[in-house]
Amino acid sequence: MRICILGGDGYLGWPTAMHFAARGHDVVAVDNGAKRSWEESVDVVPLDPVPTLEDRAEHWRRGWRRPIEVVHGDIAGDPNLMHGICRDFKPDAIIHYAEQPSAPFSMMNQESALYTQQNNVQGNLNVMFAMRDHCPDAHLIKLGTMGEYGTPNIDIEEGWLELEHKGRRDRVLYPKKPHSLYHLSKVHDSHNLEFACRVWNLRVTDLNQGVVYGIETPEMDGDPMLCTSFHYDDIFGTVLNRFVVQAVIGMPLTVYGNGRQTRGYLNIRDTLQCVELAALNPSQPGEFRVYNQFTEQFSIMELAKRVQKAALSLGYVVNVQHVANPRTEQEDHYYKAVHTGLLELGLKPHLLDDEVLVGMLERAEGAADRVSEVGLLPRVSWRHGLQEESAPCTAAAS
Amino acid sequence: MRICILGGDGYLGWPTAMHFAARGHDVVAVDNGAKRSWEESVDVVPLDPVPTLEDRAEHWRRGWRRPIEVVHGDIAGDPNLMHGICRDFKPDAIIHYAEQPSAPFSMMNQESALYTQQNNVQGNLNVMFAMRDHCPDAHLIKLGTMGEYGTPNIDIEEGWLELEHKGRRDRVLYPKKPHSLYHLSKVHDSHNLEFACRVWNLRVTDLNQGVVYGIETPEMDGDPMLCTSFHYDDIFGTVLNRFVVQAVIGMPLTVYGNGRQTRGYLNIRDTLQCVELAALNPSQPGEFRVYNQFTEQFSIMELAKRVQKAALSLGYVVNVQHVANPRTEQEDHYYKAVHTGLLELGLKPHLLDDEVLVGMLERAEGAADRVSEVGLLPRVSWRHGLQEESAPCTAAAS
Repeated sequence: MRICILGGDGYLGWPTAMHFAARGHDVVAVDNGAKRSWEESVDVVPLDPVPTLEDRAEHWRRGWRRPIEVVHGDIAGDPNLMHGICRDFKPDAIIHYAEQPSAPFSMMNQESALYTQQNNVQGNLNVMFAMRDHCPDAHLIKLGTMGEYGTPNIDIEEGWLELEHKGRRDRVLYPKKPHSLYHLSKVHDSHNLEFACRVWNLRVTDLNQGVVYGIETPEMDGDPMLCTSFHYDDIFGTVLNRFVVQAVIGMPLTVYGNGRQTRGYLNIRDTLQCVELAALNPSQPGEFRVYNQFTEQFSIMELAKRVQKAALSLGYVVNVQHVANPRTEQEDHYYKAVHTGLLELGLKPHLLDDEVLVGMLERAEGAADRVSEVGLLPRVSWRHGLQEESAPCTAAAS
Repeated sequence: MRICILGGDGYLGWPTAMHFAARGHDVVAVDNGAKRSWEESVDVVPLDPVPTLEDRAEHWRRGWRRPIEVVHGDIAGDPNLMHGICRDFKPDAIIHYAEQPSAPFSMMNQESALYTQQNNVQGNLNVMFAMRDHCPDAHLIKLGTMGEYGTPNIDIEEGWLELEHKGRRDRVLYPKKPHSLYHLSKVHDSHNLEFACRVWNLRVTDLNQGVVYGIETPEMDGDPMLCTSFHYDDIFGTVLNRFVVQAVIGMPLTVYGNGRQTRGYLNIRDTLQCVELAALNPSQPGEFRVYNQFTEQFSIMELAKRVQKAALSLGYVVNVQHVANPRTEQEDHYYKAVHTGLLELGLKPHLLDDEVLVGMLERAEGAADRVSEVGLLPRVSWRHGLQEESAPCTAAAS
């Protein structure tokens, strides 16, 4: 297949590019390097130094592997970029990761909020128009997030809801109550894409992904020239990744609020599996298909306790510290989300067990001297935006 | 009250400004004149020559009436404009009409689509942030549209839906299937605003308005210096307004498709009533309140027949012509929309009767020599965008 990966320089984009190339597909990875400037703007770096996308692709090719073509460009800011790619490369599938991916980044201030919604929504619209004009039968695989749904008091279905109301029935888009202005940008994308399927007959799979954890994928094979941008900070890090790093540097695991917030999680290896399954089993022309892409549900406290236990097996005595929740969110809530679609396509989950956690802890251990303290405590309040160092949102609550 | 009207130069904005000023309120009307450049870009003008907002406000003041203050500025492009207004004017209510208001405009091409979503979403975000920072207790009255809902197979409720699913209950945002990329921009706004209520405790009323018709409001009092921008074209005109103009120039009423598409309609005088009722009865802090703002439902064919009949009473023999539907929409569909909220606040509807239609026809008659033929037939196809003159989307279907 001819696979175009948007956001090929990112935490998931680069591993996805290697995953498809290793399986004999023709891969083009598109990125403008924006994530690296966002990192700089909030004073964080990934755990491992990450070579440029071009250098990683060159290193990958030199190992006698199927090349990954790199295109440097901005799908949001350049309305013609996707037209050229769709016209010339003629992708069978476009995997779209190329969005500002952080909820706290979107909540820092007015500028970062507008930037996030503009960048994400416009990039996605540019993809839609280019597909309509040049490859209307290609399959768009768009990364959404489980955070679009929020925490409703009913079961979360996969994107659509069959409902009965006043004696009549309809199938409607699942109503959403997103967690942040970033999550809202993805809700906007989903609405725009459902319209594109309806009016232009595009085929789209929207993958509402849970929280991803993990440092390595098989194609990296321990080679630092092939690593991905693993973040453990307050802006771009995800919670389990942060806990693992906190554990190996002797810092308490910082739990926002009471820690009973429950979400779906998955291993980065399962992200690659899911995206591949979606590509190999495209949706129909005109179909807006949605899968909930996660394998297990945990509360924050459950994760903290699991990390504590696995760390202890390596000799680390780790504390858990509750900090005032910087986010406006329900801490005690119902949470049950359907996630059968990808299992039916053949997903074999890598579940979170002690072995996985010990592997992550050992990997983080080797990089512990590079850990920066910036962002190990939250800096962005949902109510008041980016706070100075001593701001209330970083103070311990209990 | 201190009332800030965004989009004060528009079809509804200017009459709203006069309506509030005439009732003793302090009014600031904000506009950047963008609508006039959009009109130029698609080669249309309103029926009556419309003096600038500044000239109309000056003429209004000279009649010994309570002044309407004018601020020239772009709420979307200038992130600081609303901060200044909220900080200095300290509005009790902000009435937000300042959006690109045309579905066909948004469907012309990639550029107009991106412009529409960017302009509308960013302007609304700028309003949200300025309110949060300077007047968090003010009441935002945001104009949405009934077209956000689409044509679901269940009753349309007022913004929220109480539902039961798998034995559990929740109150959720009503799921939407909008008619165009313009309508989608308003859906995005609504989602962003619901979030602002939830996280920042803002008070918002979202008015999902039906199709507005009418040329005059009482404050105009026949004075051409106080007129509003009445459109009858394919881009900015609404259907009944177009039919009225087509009738008086001896052109058939052009019905898109079979004409069984049903929507909610209201008289421009009722728009003013509704907005005033919302302002006088604000929503609560943290409340995202939604009203469906229309008074009657009609199919396109029903409207055509009513215009035909009223025109005949003035001596015009008017034909109805079906043209191929340029829009991708359901023509045969269920449509039943709740609209009790504003009636409960005291709305006294001006229903569409022969007298109203005859009044509109007579008013249009007086301007018939100014009617341009540009845009009396549709130029924008939902599938293919803006078409040349002889394009299929303008061909007669029956």
